[in-house]
Amino acid sequence: MKVEGRNSVYELLKTDKEIDKILVQKDLKDEPSKRLINAIRSRNIKLQLVDKYVIDKESESKRSQGFIAYVSEYEYFEVEDIIEACEDKDGFIVILNEILDPHNLGSIIRVCECAGVDGLIIGKDRSASVNDTVMRISAGALNHVKVARVTNINNVIDQLKDNGFWVYGAELGGENIYKSNLTGKICLVIGGEDSGIKRLTKEKCDGIVTIPMFGKVNSLNASVACGIAVFEALRQRAND
Amino acid sequence: MKVEGRNSVYELLKTDKEIDKILVQKDLKDEPSKRLINAIRSRNIKLQLVDKYVIDKESESKRSQGFIAYVSEYEYFEVEDIIEACEDKDGFIVILNEILDPHNLGSIIRVCECAGVDGLIIGKDRSASVNDTVMRISAGALNHVKVARVTNINNVIDQLKDNGFWVYGAELGGENIYKSNLTGKICLVIGGEDSGIKRLTKEKCDGIVTIPMFGKVNSLNASVACGIAVFEALRQRAND
Repeated sequence: MKVEGRNSVYELLKTDKEIDKILVQKDLKDEPSKRLINAIRSRNIKLQLVDKYVIDKESESKRSQGFIAYVSEYEYFEVEDIIEACEDKDGFIVILNEILDPHNLGSIIRVCECAGVDGLIIGKDRSASVNDTVMRISAGALNHVKVARVTNINNVIDQLKDNGFWVYGAELGGENIYKSNLTGKICLVIGGEDSGIKRLTKEKCDGIVTIPMFGKVNSLNASVACGIAVFEALRQRAND
Repeated sequence: MKVEGRNSVYELLKTDKEIDKILVQKDLKDEPSKRLINAIRSRNIKLQLVDKYVIDKESESKRSQGFIAYVSEYEYFEVEDIIEACEDKDGFIVILNEILDPHNLGSIIRVCECAGVDGLIIGKDRSASVNDTVMRISAGALNHVKVARVTNINNVIDQLKDNGFWVYGAELGGENIYKSNLTGKICLVIGGEDSGIKRLTKEKCDGIVTIPMFGKVNSLNASVACGIAVFEALRQRAND
């Protein structure tokens, strides 16, 4: 998997991920690039200085800023890892129910990172999975959020309930989210761009919470809706 | 300007915008398409049934779903229109300070529509302007939000203050947004993807409000940050 762009490579260096090598464009003279090159060198990672045309050829994003790192494929966490990390605290988990667009997945990973969410769970079928685009859009956040990929989301909801979590779907037609109680051990389920939360999954939820809207179209982008719901939970939890 | 996709064309029909013509792909048999064709016919708009290859050639989004409407270029509102609309109520205005990515602008227009914001003000220079991409990403929301484009945002801030607005910048390093007061006549300034709010503009603000974050990277997408800030203002205003 390729990680491209100054910020993304810089964030990658902060993790203990195995980096195969990093291509760096020759003759980068600006300060941020020089700082990053020094950081790479201090980590003893294989660095190849190459001509711009090599970068242009290798770059998939076309926004590499002269830096392309090669790492092993994303290694998903297990749901058990996430549950375990929540053992001694009020955990906060997010489940995505068929988010299809890698841009939305990347943006949601950023939301979860900023919110300090304990883990993100996505489905194997009919869902965007972690690829180069997701990595790039996540702007390095992917390195600091546990993402698990599961075959059956409904089974995971049961498992979370058995471990003391309350599970809430964020969807139209539920309780006003600002009047709900999102403190304690919770899991928030976010629906896909087109279909929202699936019926069976919705039935598994302990409750449905809704962002009140005041327009005529009232259609938020999936990652924006996720951001509003997750940060409302945080607001409540900070006051708890 | 082209408006593509079933939802966007459907939302367009609800407005009084002048529609030059609508291309519709021949032989669409599904119910949503039939309903939309009936809606177009009932509005007495020039409808051309064309082969799929014509649609494919004309479509810029490649997600037209067989519907492409041609409308005149977007007509911006004046700042005065927006201020006037707020005369007898606690208006809520959003200013964007150098949002460059049309996807973010489209997504922010969706946020503003859902929030019932009274107007959105963008700069002429170094800013995405309303184009086909913005129209498509806004998913029809653009038809229901007043967007004004101005040469000098700082002058507009003075004008808003003269009209009784309190102006808050959403940016790092300010007051916790959940402890701020965003009720009354307010304007929220959202910074650009790279540079945030410009120094001079920040100095014009009555205050800076900050979304508390709990991660290591802590970088939200601009439209997600805008969504969180705007909906926090709404939450406060609903309780007011």
